[in-house]
Amino acid sequence: MNKKEALKIYNSQNEKIRAYELVMNTTVYDKMTVAPKDGNAYCNRMMAIIEGELYNLKTAGEYVDAILYLSNEDLGEVGNRDIYLAKKSLDEILKFSKEEIMEFTLAQMDGNDAWYKAKMDKDYKEFEPYLLKLIELSKKKAQRRNPAIKAYDLFLDDYEEGMNMRKYDHFFSLIRKELLPLIKKIDKKKGFIDDSFLYRYYPADKQALFMKDIMDYLGYDKSWGYMGLTEHPFTISMSRNDVRVTTNYDEHNITAAIFSVIHECGHAFYEHQVDPKYDKYMFLHNMSSGMHESQSRFFENYLARRKSFFKLLYPKLQEYFPQNLGNVSLDKFMKAVSVSKCSLIRTEADELTYPIHILIRYELEKDIFAGKADLNKLDQLWNEKYKKYLGIEAGDASEGILQDIHWSDGSYGYFPTYALGSAIGAQLIHKMEKDLDVDALLEKGKFNKITKYLKDNVQHYGALYSFEEILKKATGEEFNPQYYIDYLKNKYGKIYEIKQ
Amino acid sequence: MNKKEALKIYNSQNEKIRAYELVMNTTVYDKMTVAPKDGNAYCNRMMAIIEGELYNLKTAGEYVDAILYLSNEDLGEVGNRDIYLAKKSLDEILKFSKEEIMEFTLAQMDGNDAWYKAKMDKDYKEFEPYLLKLIELSKKKAQRRNPAIKAYDLFLDDYEEGMNMRKYDHFFSLIRKELLPLIKKIDKKKGFIDDSFLYRYYPADKQALFMKDIMDYLGYDKSWGYMGLTEHPFTISMSRNDVRVTTNYDEHNITAAIFSVIHECGHAFYEHQVDPKYDKYMFLHNMSSGMHESQSRFFENYLARRKSFFKLLYPKLQEYFPQNLGNVSLDKFMKAVSVSKCSLIRTEADELTYPIHILIRYELEKDIFAGKADLNKLDQLWNEKYKKYLGIEAGDASEGILQDIHWSDGSYGYFPTYALGSAIGAQLIHKMEKDLDVDALLEKGKFNKITKYLKDNVQHYGALYSFEEILKKATGEEFNPQYYIDYLKNKYGKIYEIKQ
Repeated sequence: MNKKEALKIYNSQNEKIRAYELVMNTTVYDKMTVAPKDGNAYCNRMMAIIEGELYNLKTAGEYVDAILYLSNEDLGEVGNRDIYLAKKSLDEILKFSKEEIMEFTLAQMDGNDAWYKAKMDKDYKEFEPYLLKLIELSKKKAQRRNPAIKAYDLFLDDYEEGMNMRKYDHFFSLIRKELLPLIKKIDKKKGFIDDSFLYRYYPADKQALFMKDIMDYLGYDKSWGYMGLTEHPFTISMSRNDVRVTTNYDEHNITAAIFSVIHECGHAFYEHQVDPKYDKYMFLHNMSSGMHESQSRFFENYLARRKSFFKLLYPKLQEYFPQNLGNVSLDKFMKAVSVSKCSLIRTEADELTYPIHILIRYELEKDIFAGKADLNKLDQLWNEKYKKYLGIEAGDASEGILQDIHWSDGSYGYFPTYALGSAIGAQLIHKMEKDLDVDALLEKGKFNKITKYLKDNVQHYGALYSFEEILKKATGEEFNPQYYIDYLKNKYGKIYEIKQ
Repeated sequence: MNKKEALKIYNSQNEKIRAYELVMNTTVYDKMTVAPKDGNAYCNRMMAIIEGELYNLKTAGEYVDAILYLSNEDLGEVGNRDIYLAKKSLDEILKFSKEEIMEFTLAQMDGNDAWYKAKMDKDYKEFEPYLLKLIELSKKKAQRRNPAIKAYDLFLDDYEEGMNMRKYDHFFSLIRKELLPLIKKIDKKKGFIDDSFLYRYYPADKQALFMKDIMDYLGYDKSWGYMGLTEHPFTISMSRNDVRVTTNYDEHNITAAIFSVIHECGHAFYEHQVDPKYDKYMFLHNMSSGMHESQSRFFENYLARRKSFFKLLYPKLQEYFPQNLGNVSLDKFMKAVSVSKCSLIRTEADELTYPIHILIRYELEKDIFAGKADLNKLDQLWNEKYKKYLGIEAGDASEGILQDIHWSDGSYGYFPTYALGSAIGAQLIHKMEKDLDVDALLEKGKFNKITKYLKDNVQHYGALYSFEEILKKATGEEFNPQYYIDYLKNKYGKIYEIKQ
């Protein structure tokens, strides 16, 4: 085999792999958005079979040989990065049999369905056996992958290259130390800001009309995007030119969908704006979750919670809901969407309490994979953490352990990237404010200047570098969570008139 | 290889094939309903790759050996039927290379996209090269499959086992001779029935609400069904328990969506009500198109154009559109939906003129594959046929040759099954009226008794028999198109007070 032959095999097999991924992602999206439930069990079995076929491709003799050959060649910066990550994946998948991979896929898909049903029924017991099975399988997988590294460290690195418990412990201790005291103080000022009008009756069909306005404002275009409905909002990309988002309407909370849609659109732009020259590389799969989340939370918080963002949009919102908002000024609305309060649902949490929701999940996951958590009481442990940190308890499991989809498909180690992403976003907005007059652009509806800036400074790299490297290129500085802490303390200190 | 081994290989490979079909069907449905257009070209290429992978499965050495082995064994009625059809498919696919199959798939998918764009642009020239390429490929395919049989005969048999030009010529000559004179007479009585109120402004969102009522009435349940939106309505089944339909709203024609939805639900029930014991058999792919269409047109025409069908539904329709229908009695509404007129759009045509739309397509397809049609003037030839038979001409190609999706994905020989299905339906309703008090059931909303009858007498067989065999079992008689002719002549003679 020479380099040319190896590259040919590598590229052609990768294209096949991408074809499988396209149809599988499409089937997942379909299943989450529209598929009738009676077909789920059959669909899951069929997906496990396709995953098995994909396993055959990923472990085919000449493909493996090509990767091994190329990992000793110099393919330039992009090629080297690609092969490095391909080799890393290969080393891992070769530790499993096809049957094991299929078993895990089936457990994920069935877990997902069971979670959904349990959440609708508000009954954790329905979901528990699926969750425990997935945890068990994940533990076994980690042990096989690398017994020298702690399972949870492996998972953390899966979602964020280079991260581990040592680094996250430091990060979260900062959050605990710096933010919890402020959260406690604000909790004592309940009612300081009136946000009751946000929780009036907002019919879903009218909310949907406003979401279209938001997407227009952001430039999330229907030629490359589409928004479906799911229990848990998410973003998934079929290709760079087909990036889907989903949302969910709470008819008694107008902000839930608004900020969730803006959030997912942030993810969507990241997928869409990667340099087309990377299309054929497999490393796109390894895009940093933290960096991804930094973009979504950038949209959701660092941009959309400004008055300038809503200058053009708010009058439209008032038009859809004249009874609820006709007499609410933009200033009053902006104050209301900046309320901080200890609440149960992560996706609806304000910026200040948000990282505590993540801290809770981080501690739980750590304990689960360190064998320190009583697996038969995970729902109770969840509630105890909320009581401890935020002083509140879930009424039922749908507001507690069942609220998030992640654990139902074996995504452990994912949550921490959400807080990390928020911190990255804070550092990025600090830099962007120096380069652009952000408020002026938002006020004038020139959101395309913002997305271009993000493309040029962050998104075009795709997965070429780790989040730390991209952040350094974008801001000229190392990752520094202090930006995040300062941002939150300043913002909420001012809003609640608390001296620190 | 012994029988047990052969069956094991056969069944396990079939399960894999079904897995591919599930993800491919899902991707097609997704593409037709929601996928953003910028991703289409990439999706099409990826689908061609998956089709290539499927080719590998279908032609894998031991699978081929198993089919050959089993085709000499006695596997009982069901098994024998399955292997007979599997062998037939195998003989055909083995005549093509993987690359040829992939090329055809890509031409189909690209043809579909080009058709859609051309229809939106009302510009046949955009679509013409894609159509000509597909016709060319189809001709070549037929030549390779069986040079001893005329291409169009092959295609007719593909969609309806046992049918050919000789049989269809007979069928259509009957239609021409018996129905055209009546159509001409009715054409002279334009305005005899007032149906103008059907073409007022009917907003799509309100139409959608009524479609839900219809689906509830029919028992098309969201646990096993889902309705999306497409340019061209269709039904597709992911599995027996996941059967999707689509529709399209014309805001100036309330009946278009109503009867189209009822039609597609007829297809959906057929897919859903096949006996579960056939789930693992591949012959399900070979369900008779004519029988399928008989079920959809059974719903659409033989049931839904009765007053008893709308007894419970019509008041709801009036509630959604009080301005348009508040003063229109059910009798007046039923008369209006029974209007017959020479029109351009097949899917919206009345029962009487409908088979003429099919006759036109049949004659065109016949000429195309006999080399008698000038391929550079297909749009003109289309218009000439409409002028000749119905006395009208399309304003633009979207009302003419671009109206139907079928030719854009290489479905030639499919249309004739639509008229055949209507004729089968007429024979079935004749028998059903003897067995059930159809109007009484419809009036009382007991549609489940009707679907059960169809299941027990027709649908449960799936593709175990040809349409002629199933019809014989269901009615005790050979297929007889005279039922259809008599039904139409009686119905429209009465409505238009024409003695014959």
